[in-house]
Amino acid sequence: MSSYARKAQLPPGSLVYTGETHTEEKAIISVFVYNEASVFEQDVPTLVDALALRKKGTTIWININGLTDTANIADIGVHFNIHALVLEDILHVAQRPKCEDYGEYLFIVARMLDVTTAGSATPEVSSEQVSCILGKDYLITFQEHPGDVFEPVRNRLRHAKGQVRRMGADYLAYALLDAIVDNYFVILERIGEESEAIEEGLVENPSEALMHRIHAMKRLMISLRRSIWPLREAVNTMERGESALIRKRSRLYFRDLYDHTIQVMDVVESLRDIAGGMLDTYLSAMSNRMNSVMKVLTIIATIFIPLTFIAGVYGMNFEHMPELHHPWAYPITLLVMFGVSVGMLIFFRRKRWI
Amino acid sequence: MSSYARKAQLPPGSLVYTGETHTEEKAIISVFVYNEASVFEQDVPTLVDALALRKKGTTIWININGLTDTANIADIGVHFNIHALVLEDILHVAQRPKCEDYGEYLFIVARMLDVTTAGSATPEVSSEQVSCILGKDYLITFQEHPGDVFEPVRNRLRHAKGQVRRMGADYLAYALLDAIVDNYFVILERIGEESEAIEEGLVENPSEALMHRIHAMKRLMISLRRSIWPLREAVNTMERGESALIRKRSRLYFRDLYDHTIQVMDVVESLRDIAGGMLDTYLSAMSNRMNSVMKVLTIIATIFIPLTFIAGVYGMNFEHMPELHHPWAYPITLLVMFGVSVGMLIFFRRKRWI
Amino acid sequence: MSSYARKAQLPPGSLVYTGETHTEEKAIISVFVYNEASVFEQDVPTLVDALALRKKGTTIWININGLTDTANIADIGVHFNIHALVLEDILHVAQRPKCEDYGEYLFIVARMLDVTTAGSATPEVSSEQVSCILGKDYLITFQEHPGDVFEPVRNRLRHAKGQVRRMGADYLAYALLDAIVDNYFVILERIGEESEAIEEGLVENPSEALMHRIHAMKRLMISLRRSIWPLREAVNTMERGESALIRKRSRLYFRDLYDHTIQVMDVVESLRDIAGGMLDTYLSAMSNRMNSVMKVLTIIATIFIPLTFIAGVYGMNFEHMPELHHPWAYPITLLVMFGVSVGMLIFFRRKRWI
Amino acid sequence: MSSYARKAQLPPGSLVYTGETHTEEKAIISVFVYNEASVFEQDVPTLVDALALRKKGTTIWININGLTDTANIADIGVHFNIHALVLEDILHVAQRPKCEDYGEYLFIVARMLDVTTAGSATPEVSSEQVSCILGKDYLITFQEHPGDVFEPVRNRLRHAKGQVRRMGADYLAYALLDAIVDNYFVILERIGEESEAIEEGLVENPSEALMHRIHAMKRLMISLRRSIWPLREAVNTMERGESALIRKRSRLYFRDLYDHTIQVMDVVESLRDIAGGMLDTYLSAMSNRMNSVMKVLTIIATIFIPLTFIAGVYGMNFEHMPELHHPWAYPITLLVMFGVSVGMLIFFRRKRWI
Amino acid sequence: MSSYARKAQLPPGSLVYTGETHTEEKAIISVFVYNEASVFEQDVPTLVDALALRKKGTTIWININGLTDTANIADIGVHFNIHALVLEDILHVAQRPKCEDYGEYLFIVARMLDVTTAGSATPEVSSEQVSCILGKDYLITFQEHPGDVFEPVRNRLRHAKGQVRRMGADYLAYALLDAIVDNYFVILERIGEESEAIEEGLVENPSEALMHRIHAMKRLMISLRRSIWPLREAVNTMERGESALIRKRSRLYFRDLYDHTIQVMDVVESLRDIAGGMLDTYLSAMSNRMNSVMKVLTIIATIFIPLTFIAGVYGMNFEHMPELHHPWAYPITLLVMFGVSVGMLIFFRRKRWI
Repeated sequence: MSSYARKAQLPPGSLVYTGETHTEEKAIISVFVYNEASVFEQDVPTLVDALALRKKGTTIWININGLTDTANIADIGVHFNIHALVLEDILHVAQRPKCEDYGEYLFIVARMLDVTTAGSATPEVSSEQVSCILGKDYLITFQEHPGDVFEPVRNRLRHAKGQVRRMGADYLAYALLDAIVDNYFVILERIGEESEAIEEGLVENPSEALMHRIHAMKRLMISLRRSIWPLREAVNTMERGESALIRKRSRLYFRDLYDHTIQVMDVVESLRDIAGGMLDTYLSAMSNRMNSVMKVLTIIATIFIPLTFIAGVYGMNFEHMPELHHPWAYPITLLVMFGVSVGMLIFFRRKRWI
Repeated sequence: MSSYARKAQLPPGSLVYTGETHTEEKAIISVFVYNEASVFEQDVPTLVDALALRKKGTTIWININGLTDTANIADIGVHFNIHALVLEDILHVAQRPKCEDYGEYLFIVARMLDVTTAGSATPEVSSEQVSCILGKDYLITFQEHPGDVFEPVRNRLRHAKGQVRRMGADYLAYALLDAIVDNYFVILERIGEESEAIEEGLVENPSEALMHRIHAMKRLMISLRRSIWPLREAVNTMERGESALIRKRSRLYFRDLYDHTIQVMDVVESLRDIAGGMLDTYLSAMSNRMNSVMKVLTIIATIFIPLTFIAGVYGMNFEHMPELHHPWAYPITLLVMFGVSVGMLIFFRRKRWI
Repeated sequence: MSSYARKAQLPPGSLVYTGETHTEEKAIISVFVYNEASVFEQDVPTLVDALALRKKGTTIWININGLTDTANIADIGVHFNIHALVLEDILHVAQRPKCEDYGEYLFIVARMLDVTTAGSATPEVSSEQVSCILGKDYLITFQEHPGDVFEPVRNRLRHAKGQVRRMGADYLAYALLDAIVDNYFVILERIGEESEAIEEGLVENPSEALMHRIHAMKRLMISLRRSIWPLREAVNTMERGESALIRKRSRLYFRDLYDHTIQVMDVVESLRDIAGGMLDTYLSAMSNRMNSVMKVLTIIATIFIPLTFIAGVYGMNFEHMPELHHPWAYPITLLVMFGVSVGMLIFFRRKRWI
Repeated sequence: MSSYARKAQLPPGSLVYTGETHTEEKAIISVFVYNEASVFEQDVPTLVDALALRKKGTTIWININGLTDTANIADIGVHFNIHALVLEDILHVAQRPKCEDYGEYLFIVARMLDVTTAGSATPEVSSEQVSCILGKDYLITFQEHPGDVFEPVRNRLRHAKGQVRRMGADYLAYALLDAIVDNYFVILERIGEESEAIEEGLVENPSEALMHRIHAMKRLMISLRRSIWPLREAVNTMERGESALIRKRSRLYFRDLYDHTIQVMDVVESLRDIAGGMLDTYLSAMSNRMNSVMKVLTIIATIFIPLTFIAGVYGMNFEHMPELHHPWAYPITLLVMFGVSVGMLIFFRRKRWI
Repeated sequence: MSSYARKAQLPPGSLVYTGETHTEEKAIISVFVYNEASVFEQDVPTLVDALALRKKGTTIWININGLTDTANIADIGVHFNIHALVLEDILHVAQRPKCEDYGEYLFIVARMLDVTTAGSATPEVSSEQVSCILGKDYLITFQEHPGDVFEPVRNRLRHAKGQVRRMGADYLAYALLDAIVDNYFVILERIGEESEAIEEGLVENPSEALMHRIHAMKRLMISLRRSIWPLREAVNTMERGESALIRKRSRLYFRDLYDHTIQVMDVVESLRDIAGGMLDTYLSAMSNRMNSVMKVLTIIATIFIPLTFIAGVYGMNFEHMPELHHPWAYPITLLVMFGVSVGMLIFFRRKRWI
């Protein structure tokens, strides 16, 4: 029974994780408690431990890695008074990026991409849902698997680089989303390299393998587009700042983030255009190559067919063929044959066929 | 006379069922009367029996299965004061999904899909109109044929799972629409499997049958799109909550439903893109295969034509052909022929033609 | 001088009929005067006669069939105080469907389609402009040629079926437009049958004639689209009910009509998609068929070319060809030839070329 | 140095004419001074003479034909207090159609098209910028070259036909724009004829020349579209009547004009669709024709290749070929050859290859 | 490590230049201080020197050429109180054109294009980011490399041509943007020439090199579009004049600029259409050429194959072939062969195959 078929049986708001489950995975909860003056970082086993770290006048960032242990999610729902549908969306990990305003908190979904390349093959991009609950002085993030692109943000928190420690939970949310979007650029750069590699291959030796790489790239662009396009809208929602949770001084940063998502879309679109162009080039190169092969072969056949006919004529067994008895007949015939073939070659050359 | 030609003769508001009619089908009316404390379920033969079950402080859900008995529909029109055009739309079962606000009730149309697959063939999707009339404390649903996707909702009603018993008629409408949309995911998953099967077939052995399956899939996506796209708008209408019939606490659920319809559209769009890509792959695979066949055959012909010419030359009957009398002439000629063919093969190989 | 070149010379508001003129056609003016209690119907020769029938407390519907007699149109302009541009639009019969509000009256243009089919050929659709002037208690309709789709409405008027006698001029306008739109469905059904016939033909025997039928169907869809798409907007204008001429109780009917036009558009769009798909199928079927012919022929040639070469070798006239004298040489050669051809067939089969 | 490169060096508002200059061309200034009672018409050499004709209670229309004499333009700028950017736009004749409101006057740009056809060739359309400055009681129009489509309007002014003398400068502007748009219909009719001519040619004898005509037509539609599409917006601006310069009673006329521009666009779009369809038809006709040629030729070759093989077999010089000595061998062989060829023809026919 | 990968590690607002760095480049700061009465121009080494030149009642334009020396940028941030994100955007030179309102100043990004052509090759367009900070009485512009299109503006400043000295910083910003947009026209003219050269080449000798030039041109149009399209929106923002920094009297100029950007887009779009059309022409020319070659060659082969067969028949060694002994047999056979070939040629000609 597929996860959708199973899910269809359940009431809305049921907490079932729909992603791939590796039973040995245990959720890892890492907590940052910070304000401008201090920062405290700890990995804890359960949510209760995490909440114990919360202090007045500080911002808390709880990052939950791994969604199989749905008890944690339910606890968060109870403690932070989160709507059941939000919890469901966190666990049903095929959400589109979005930003929903629930009054006391914002629910933000983004997709974190990871690129894996074995050798010179087409890069494969795997996508992971990152859900954020942004409250007044807390930010809770949910990831499906360990490994993320947030390490630079953590370092900035640890070493008080930039403004991250001064600015509160909304800025932290911005910093994390910005890290995700910056990572898109890295991935697009990798795809850009692949695109250049394909283009070189097209010039040198257009093979069917290249076509499969172009198609793979096109499919990649389609799926990237679906991850990034709705994010643009979500960030726009935040930038417009209708929620009091996004403070005014943070809005400029979200506007900047919005700009970046548009830039990403621009690159995606132009890579798509390039992929489309390469497909055209490939097809016309293949067809040109095929055509030139066929042309040369046909020309060879065409030259020899009249010659074979002449030879056939003098191979006839008629009694009365005066040419056969002429002493110079054979060399003259050979000369005629040579002349015919040279004449045809000249004709073909003049017609620019060869 | 087609159903449209017949319908065109009738005044607007005429109650004529335009779907396929199986005379033996008798409408089945099933009734749920429930509130948070209790639930009562019964199948009744006529609408009057159904209405007799209605009680104060409860919500009643009347589900009518089969539209051939238009008397029931007319009764509902009278009892619940439903506009004639609504009754007409219920019976003219080619409506687009929509949500119309008639003040005292909402009229909602959705399409319930059912997938049937015989063996490994392309899934065929049949579509059935589900019309709902949502009032303050009643919900009336109309289906064309027995068999639906509402069983999980009924179970939740029966066993008071989730919030369905607490939340009234609007939530019930949401739950039913959600069941319909969840079912779309199940169907899309089935189509996704078909798409993977086709893709495998394309790699192994691209045949004309596959092209027909791709075309069938494309046509399926077109018809799915037409069922789902307007539903998005209809749900959006409900979510915006301009009608007092959708209570505020239910709106979040409709927003969630709206999200799901967008996700469905996303999947449909990307399956369409994939189908388009597969068609391209098929066509270029076919053309590549054809080309490589033709190339090999042409190369064979090209190699033998000059050899046949040489044989033809020494088959001529000239009296004075000194070569004919040389004792080594025959083996030398054979060697020359062999050399010519090997030379051509090397030439072709170097040109990467073979 | 074409009608446009001629028209370009005239001041705006000139009354010149731009459609095809059949001199023998005389305008037929048919009048219905009705209220809920009574109905009176008469064909009259001139507008003056028609106006004489108008009575207080009744609604009058004047239907003018044939636009060559522009005097009638001018009379109407004077009597009902209609703007010169409206009269011009009535006569310049290439208007797009539209609805214009002139305060005291609405000017509505729609296109009535008629399908004509000779034998099993592509249906040809001819289009006729229907202009309506809708006032408080009168409706004037203008048609280019006799023959229309309004007979069911007339019958309803005559026999007081439905609400048409109770509801006034705006409802009558709705009923007529509804008849026009219902007729679109009938035509689309006819085109749908043609589409199925083509599809069957494509499977059985894809011929060039089919391609022309597909192209004809595509062109038909384009022209239908242009008739129907602007009608949608016009009906929407009426539905929004900004004009006091559309009474509130009639608006629901116009909303229903609006729904129908969208449904028509849906069917048109999906027929267009289907036509596009059939064209693809046709082209790839033709190319497949051509390819398989060429392949078989090339294979035949390829098998015989080496055999002919062998025959050519033993047709050479060298003196010293020891094989020629061997008593078994001939049958062995034949056997070798047979073996070569069988070997090639097996090779081709194994490569799946045949 | 191109006109753009030269222009790029100049400050904004510089008065340099960027169109093609014919030195011998001298600007022709023609003036109409009229009110309902009287009309006075004169061609004058300079603007000063034109202004001398202006009288109270009249409307003046100054039409300037030829833009090389920029002194006139500068004079107008001074006298009517026109912004420098407007004057620049009048002279930089590659403007898109537009309507700009400068408070005291409207600046309107349209493009007047002229179609020239040499013999049966593709119509060539040349485009000329017409700029209008519409004030309270004056209208100044600027044309690049002599020759325009305004003669019918002049005649109406002269002979007081229609409303043109009663209605003031805004109606005159409408009448001129209407003349331009009416002329579009004439041109589109000419292109429509070309399209029908091409279509006939496609059925009779699809040649490469036809393809060039189709491409020329497509390019024409693209450039027409660019002239007409922005005009639609400009007219819409005027129709909405935000400027007091367009009196209320004239607005209906501009609405009508707006309708006409939409109709023009409709025709352009459908001609584009038709051109696209013809291109498809051409390509598939060419490919069908090529294919049928190749098929017949290949069939001929295929029939003779086995026969030649048989002849080759009995041309072998083996000593022991018993058939050679049989008295009926030769006729039997000929019969067999005949049988083989007839058999193959029947086989091909049955496969529907010929 | 690519610049994106490196940037992804940094906090937002970090000042790192992401363009190509040439270490020997030193930023050049050129300053104009002017009012209507006077102008003072100087190149200075550091920003401090530049600021020392600022005087009351004057407008200062600081142009910074070269972004490697980020200290200057940081100084500007401090002195003019510019937001860190703006400084970051100035240095991250892959920004899309945009206009952001920061209250006290506007931040405008545009892209300056430069076209380089080696010989007759496809023009290559390099793009450089120009960032402007527009304050009440100052304008600071940032360029990546020396060399710009602003010389005409500088000359106007120096010689008080046009209004530039009278109108303040906002007009100067307009003048610079106008110079950039005017330059687009110059570049498009260059591309237009290339397009005409390709078209001529297509008629004379369609080669694969041409196809690469068409593809290069298409790719160029894509990248131009991405530079110009967002500029349109940015200029629109300024034209709407929501910022007090754009004075009312300057708005007309920005509207004019907006018009120019739309014109540029129009040209770009139509060049794209033309490029697309040329690609179609190329492909169909190639295919036509290939087809006509193949046709002629196949016809030659087809004519000789039956003749060779006839020769083969009379080359058979049957004892009893009466024709062989007839004295006229040989010439008659030759005549028959001649007749067959002429007959086939006539047949082919009549079928319009040759």
